[in-house]
Amino acid sequence: MLYKLIISYDGTRYFGWQKTNVGPTIQEELQKAVAKITQETAVPEAASRTDRGVHAKGQVVHLSLQKEIALRSLNAVLPSDIRVLELEPAAFHATLDAVKKEYHYHLCLGAVQDPIHRLYSWHTRYPLDLEKMRRASKDLLGTHDFSAFANEPEENPHCSLESIQIEELPGERLQIALIGNRFLYKMARNLSGTLVYIGCGKLPLDCIPSLLASRDRKAAGITAPAHGLVLQKVFYDTTHLSYNGSHDYTK
Amino acid sequence: MLYKLIISYDGTRYFGWQKTNVGPTIQEELQKAVAKITQETAVPEAASRTDRGVHAKGQVVHLSLQKEIALRSLNAVLPSDIRVLELEPAAFHATLDAVKKEYHYHLCLGAVQDPIHRLYSWHTRYPLDLEKMRRASKDLLGTHDFSAFANEPEENPHCSLESIQIEELPGERLQIALIGNRFLYKMARNLSGTLVYIGCGKLPLDCIPSLLASRDRKAAGITAPAHGLVLQKVFYDTTHLSYNGSHDYTK
Repeated sequence: MLYKLIISYDGTRYFGWQKTNVGPTIQEELQKAVAKITQETAVPEAASRTDRGVHAKGQVVHLSLQKEIALRSLNAVLPSDIRVLELEPAAFHATLDAVKKEYHYHLCLGAVQDPIHRLYSWHTRYPLDLEKMRRASKDLLGTHDFSAFANEPEENPHCSLESIQIEELPGERLQIALIGNRFLYKMARNLSGTLVYIGCGKLPLDCIPSLLASRDRKAAGITAPAHGLVLQKVFYDTTHLSYNGSHDYTK
Repeated sequence: MLYKLIISYDGTRYFGWQKTNVGPTIQEELQKAVAKITQETAVPEAASRTDRGVHAKGQVVHLSLQKEIALRSLNAVLPSDIRVLELEPAAFHATLDAVKKEYHYHLCLGAVQDPIHRLYSWHTRYPLDLEKMRRASKDLLGTHDFSAFANEPEENPHCSLESIQIEELPGERLQIALIGNRFLYKMARNLSGTLVYIGCGKLPLDCIPSLLASRDRKAAGITAPAHGLVLQKVFYDTTHLSYNGSHDYTK
């Protein structure tokens, strides 16, 4: 049976989603927890391979199992920094069927960062002009070659950004909410870092069109640190799933 | 010079405020940081000796020093889970001059706890009747002998509770905000645990008057876990500080 899971995690102590030899990962912990209950070796696949230190509120995962599994028993054996929020049988591919993703980047703008937020927001001491950031963000919307915002060369560098919302949160915090059909390697963090650079005057308000045209990663702003980023939500078009029986998702 | 500091901390990895031999404490870390800058041995005194695992947003501390010290340099040498929010010269006694304190107790009421909140809120799976909790909390207001809510016998068990606000927060969370002139040992957590027991029907709505009269700790509800508690604020009546030159606060 193919399952759809929505999971939430505090990425602080993990080396990202994807299994690696250098330290614990979310994928590995989930696979171990499932094996403990079902004695099956099932490799979970996620919508987004979040990086080391990145958090998730709504990561979507698929998993193929012979036995039945329940949300409660899975949470009982998972470490407390990974939780399954929803679990249901569903024939879909978490990665291939995703039509868009929403990421939130959190900043702390105060002179001193609340210790409770230190693992979940980037503390920038630059005074930021939010109006400038909002105006510049409009130039990022639509379909572009985002090579200047990717930390690795990509075969297809074209992405469509649908929305960028910059919102002040209580406690001198700022949230940059990004929605797009796909994100290149470290793109969400590079967009956030570039908007911060525009907000503090390190890059001019009108730099985005020429940055996009340059396709030059070095021309854009800093890669904002991982711990400020949250994979908030993954969207699926349930009427157009690529799953039609011909593709074997269980492999 | 006598300094007033307002500090914030994530209590997760600390054995409380007060110096101990069993593990790191906030008092010790603050004293070490001050010594690193000034080469002086100054023992900071706090308004509240928060327990192991309890957090603070507005702990107030006094500290006597020969040399001058700045907020920024102190934060530069403190661990990242302790921050000084304010620092100013002030002749007062953090403990003796406090006229009231505000504690917030946080609960997560959802079926699954958001991992981001796991270190900062108590996950209770009981469905809670908030109206019952609010009505019962009124019986706690005013001046009473709170022995039934103290985990150790106290010389003076009389306290005055001024306000208890029970408020729903986003993400299926609940906040119990308590303001009183003083709190006995574990009283804020015992009050929170008892209100939760009333909310889920383990104790009757009208139990508070008889609990107070019994002076029996075993009759009241559970001690809610430390990690849900935050020392939010300490209040001082600056027109009536006990400091008048006759008392040497620097000792």
